[in-house]
Amino acid sequence: MTRIAILGATGYTALELIKILLRHPEAEIVAVTSRQEGQPHVAMIHPSLTGRLDLRLEDLSPAEVAARAECVFSCLPHGASATVVSVLLDAGARVVDFSADYRLNSSEVYAEWYGRKHADPERLGKVVYGLPELFRKEISGASLVANPGCYPTSAVLALAPLLKAGLIDPRTIIIDSKSGLSGAGRTLKLTTHYPECNESVSAYNVGRHRHTPEIEQVLGTAAGTEVEVVFAPHLVPMDRGILTTTYSQPISSINEEMALQTLRDFYADEPFVRVVDHLPGTKDSLGTNFCDITARVVRGRLLTFSCLDNLIKGASGAAVQNFNLMFGYPETTAL
Amino acid sequence: MTRIAILGATGYTALELIKILLRHPEAEIVAVTSRQEGQPHVAMIHPSLTGRLDLRLEDLSPAEVAARAECVFSCLPHGASATVVSVLLDAGARVVDFSADYRLNSSEVYAEWYGRKHADPERLGKVVYGLPELFRKEISGASLVANPGCYPTSAVLALAPLLKAGLIDPRTIIIDSKSGLSGAGRTLKLTTHYPECNESVSAYNVGRHRHTPEIEQVLGTAAGTEVEVVFAPHLVPMDRGILTTTYSQPISSINEEMALQTLRDFYADEPFVRVVDHLPGTKDSLGTNFCDITARVVRGRLLTFSCLDNLIKGASGAAVQNFNLMFGYPETTAL
Amino acid sequence: MTRIAILGATGYTALELIKILLRHPEAEIVAVTSRQEGQPHVAMIHPSLTGRLDLRLEDLSPAEVAARAECVFSCLPHGASATVVSVLLDAGARVVDFSADYRLNSSEVYAEWYGRKHADPERLGKVVYGLPELFRKEISGASLVANPGCYPTSAVLALAPLLKAGLIDPRTIIIDSKSGLSGAGRTLKLTTHYPECNESVSAYNVGRHRHTPEIEQVLGTAAGTEVEVVFAPHLVPMDRGILTTTYSQPISSINEEMALQTLRDFYADEPFVRVVDHLPGTKDSLGTNFCDITARVVRGRLLTFSCLDNLIKGASGAAVQNFNLMFGYPETTAL
Amino acid sequence: MTRIAILGATGYTALELIKILLRHPEAEIVAVTSRQEGQPHVAMIHPSLTGRLDLRLEDLSPAEVAARAECVFSCLPHGASATVVSVLLDAGARVVDFSADYRLNSSEVYAEWYGRKHADPERLGKVVYGLPELFRKEISGASLVANPGCYPTSAVLALAPLLKAGLIDPRTIIIDSKSGLSGAGRTLKLTTHYPECNESVSAYNVGRHRHTPEIEQVLGTAAGTEVEVVFAPHLVPMDRGILTTTYSQPISSINEEMALQTLRDFYADEPFVRVVDHLPGTKDSLGTNFCDITARVVRGRLLTFSCLDNLIKGASGAAVQNFNLMFGYPETTAL
Repeated sequence: MTRIAILGATGYTALELIKILLRHPEAEIVAVTSRQEGQPHVAMIHPSLTGRLDLRLEDLSPAEVAARAECVFSCLPHGASATVVSVLLDAGARVVDFSADYRLNSSEVYAEWYGRKHADPERLGKVVYGLPELFRKEISGASLVANPGCYPTSAVLALAPLLKAGLIDPRTIIIDSKSGLSGAGRTLKLTTHYPECNESVSAYNVGRHRHTPEIEQVLGTAAGTEVEVVFAPHLVPMDRGILTTTYSQPISSINEEMALQTLRDFYADEPFVRVVDHLPGTKDSLGTNFCDITARVVRGRLLTFSCLDNLIKGASGAAVQNFNLMFGYPETTAL
Repeated sequence: MTRIAILGATGYTALELIKILLRHPEAEIVAVTSRQEGQPHVAMIHPSLTGRLDLRLEDLSPAEVAARAECVFSCLPHGASATVVSVLLDAGARVVDFSADYRLNSSEVYAEWYGRKHADPERLGKVVYGLPELFRKEISGASLVANPGCYPTSAVLALAPLLKAGLIDPRTIIIDSKSGLSGAGRTLKLTTHYPECNESVSAYNVGRHRHTPEIEQVLGTAAGTEVEVVFAPHLVPMDRGILTTTYSQPISSINEEMALQTLRDFYADEPFVRVVDHLPGTKDSLGTNFCDITARVVRGRLLTFSCLDNLIKGASGAAVQNFNLMFGYPETTAL
Repeated sequence: MTRIAILGATGYTALELIKILLRHPEAEIVAVTSRQEGQPHVAMIHPSLTGRLDLRLEDLSPAEVAARAECVFSCLPHGASATVVSVLLDAGARVVDFSADYRLNSSEVYAEWYGRKHADPERLGKVVYGLPELFRKEISGASLVANPGCYPTSAVLALAPLLKAGLIDPRTIIIDSKSGLSGAGRTLKLTTHYPECNESVSAYNVGRHRHTPEIEQVLGTAAGTEVEVVFAPHLVPMDRGILTTTYSQPISSINEEMALQTLRDFYADEPFVRVVDHLPGTKDSLGTNFCDITARVVRGRLLTFSCLDNLIKGASGAAVQNFNLMFGYPETTAL
Repeated sequence: MTRIAILGATGYTALELIKILLRHPEAEIVAVTSRQEGQPHVAMIHPSLTGRLDLRLEDLSPAEVAARAECVFSCLPHGASATVVSVLLDAGARVVDFSADYRLNSSEVYAEWYGRKHADPERLGKVVYGLPELFRKEISGASLVANPGCYPTSAVLALAPLLKAGLIDPRTIIIDSKSGLSGAGRTLKLTTHYPECNESVSAYNVGRHRHTPEIEQVLGTAAGTEVEVVFAPHLVPMDRGILTTTYSQPISSINEEMALQTLRDFYADEPFVRVVDHLPGTKDSLGTNFCDITARVVRGRLLTFSCLDNLIKGASGAAVQNFNLMFGYPETTAL
């Protein structure tokens, strides 16, 4: 049994994390934190937790958190995580960080895309990126894991095997993602105001979405060379799910079966990646930790289609998968 | 041609009003107001108006508005309208008020339900309620019209003819309404945050929704006696539309055909009420000024089902219908 | 470990049942049947099951099913279930029946509402209604359980305690239900064709929905007297969830706290009923086996609001709850 | 006043066409046809037309249609149109054809993509493609106009000016479209069954959608050279709207302002194309005949984003725009 604290527990990734951990036989949630005034019961914020988790939100210091918990899931926003992780680690806790603070290897790239100086720059480059399909070994022994972004997971799982196999030109990659609206979080914005976003599709942050450098870094590792992508995220009117469509130029002639077989071989032993023949819909992976992937060749271009639930495989499911690896539990527990 | 100003033009009723007026051959929009800083172009707030209305939002005094416009549509919130209407009327403008400020006859009832003293109490009881199907004659000559609420229109159009005909007991009326989310307005709230309200149905303000006294007052006028209703509004995940289901006790034995014929007779000459045999869906009236109504008898109880588009027949379409009557244009113009 | 067969496995209740059973440590799915030609793999019909259940759909006789499985979940349509249950029971299998075939006690009432003669009338009146909150003891020893309808569960859980306590008049009950569209099943219909039903709310089968006699029978048992309801179901544009609003006349003066306390007392030890103070939204119980209930008093009338996921507490979750009771597993296993 | 017949009036494009024509001062609908048995009233099929169009569906021969109407809108499916157009034209009617039958210039290409021999091959290559922004002059005098597909309009309006200006390489075009579900029509399919497609995004017909050759042909005309595109259409859970994202390689260095200015210049006098600076959402053009377009440059690649309402600018609005041009009415009438 592992004692767990969740920082920033009012958001949707925290809610989903709690639901997953409630069915984990070896996890005991001992603290949920927030700056909310009055320490409301967690069910006041998340009514779906009524009767399921009897805790109040607390405004705890990192030291207090580390005193109580062996594993800390930080759902704090970018920038905030980097100010608490050191304290947590020094106090002996192990951390899964949902923010982007430890995903990038370079504090310069971080500053460029996140518009702020990194609060803990020495650690960058030494933190494992929490994608078990690529970095399982490093995750197992880690005390700090940078949980991936939802878009990067969908794009990287589709493209990394093809880059590793040398099938596609790393300078020709276009990533067109379609995401449900829970990805935008619980903070009120006009973008996610129902009468604005329902029955509408639009692109946003084209060419400047912060997941871009993260995708390029991880794909670069897979390719063994620099990768540059055009990334255009879109919002579609649904709660959850990401479908990522990629377009790239094969290095030499390729057919669908070769691409599919490369994917199948790469993921043969993976419990949560399903290489499928049909064009997957996000609903196929809704509420699960699966990522479904397929490939097509059209007029000589290679296309991939990958789906996942942004709150599970794209966030909290992945975090529990990492937690399982870090603490030696069977990787699929509770997932 | 009538010169028109719209107060509080950032909301959804104002947007819909503008769209309707843009196809009205006798309406010229000369001013749109808001307290927004910087006087942004109206298309900055409502991108769908790009290229269709070349006006900036202005922060004008009522006197300035009245100097420019012959007809003022006030989309200001409750409380705010009552502070400007006097000035507008004194300056010679005629007004269609979207707020609840002039719908109720009694300042006591207003204070009870709206939690504030009325700013213009002398006028209460003298303002016509802008439902042409019941008060067409009074609207025609009016300088001020209180545009009805969306729920009241759906309930009153279904029930008034049955009460007038003495078919139902005025103390037994239950009103269960289902509304799309645009009715909640453009102000950000958790209630209308997409990931909260999408794929969810819930009731709200049960027994204390502010449309209750308005419904009771207008039905009371129709019935010629006091009417008391149980009103339970619900939010359903869609942009627009209200379906109102009512349940009441017939005074004597009644069958479906009698109820339907009473409705058909009452609305025989009405251009915007359709008495139908089937159970209507809100989509049948989406984007139109129609209200569709039918009736059923179940185990001796009388049920009505009425549908309308809350932003059109429930707000801006009704307002233009009133405007047409007030200014002597054909009632259906632009609708 | 119990060997399980699922009859009629192409529908949504079967799909949900499979997903629940896949996380049940004591359940082994050994057969899934359908009349589909060619015995396709179950993942061809339900892509979300890819990699999770390696079975083909088979067209098996009841005898073949009973030879393989100890517990049979019948997701066959009304009428079809009654033709196979006898054979299954005689062969020693125990059965949870999702259809309405064994819910009613009277073959006359069945014939009236379902428009056909019952195929196994002798058994009617002797089969337990699978609502553990009311009939737990009888379910535990049963070889056949009639799994309740989704609407009845939402209405009965809200009203039965109030009727049992003598708080409401059993002849004044109005039930206004709002349901997501998965309840209509996987068979293609214009009613559930996306462009027809999306962004629309409508009532259907008012006064003649087949769940009416089922509600009346079970509430009658609870009340100890005949109960007559007005039942108006509505379709709302979402996948899952039912919100049921009821209106009834209290027998004597009642306040909200009395009603709530009656509900709280009744469900004090129930794992899946949550009596809440707030007005619940269907999303609170989405994906769970919970039913959330609250009560309000408006103008002397008693109102209840109850929510559940129609595919879980309204169907497959309830079925597994019944299965757990029948086979002596902890009642909440896998739920 | 022009007498109008609509063939195949049970579908969504016909419904939308009727709604537009009902507000056209110079259009009189004299016949609506269908093979439906029993000649139901059009409002039986489309309840939203109740009280608005008092016609029954009729099963008329082309000759009977031509005897009654001066202009025929054919909403018949692909293949069927080509069998009636000759008769209609010979009898003196003028035709706007919604099907793909006259969009392609080559009967070989038609046979390859539509899997059938063309019924009227001689006419191919002589029929004007009904996109007024490119072919206004030819449309004006035409007796037969091939109304464009919804995807092609969204892609062509964004790309044609850039190709004409020689800004992009015609062999590098990727088109990623996201469409609402009304585009799939009124015929029941699992793809558009609400519980299947709601809350899901997926690609379909990748590389083999029939709009591909149409896009290539029209873009080829604009470019003055052969154009080859990768086209991946996606379905998103909403009623209406298409957002098309394109990616292409500029021929020489280009910046956003150059691309935008090229678009602005091209559409300077167009009433229905809005070149905007922001990233448009489909809701901006919902219910209108507008197409909103913008451009971005990301990592040297040129991206365009274009939105329209697939049933209006993508079908029936375009058809009325063509009708206005053909019959000499102001082009924007009723739009």
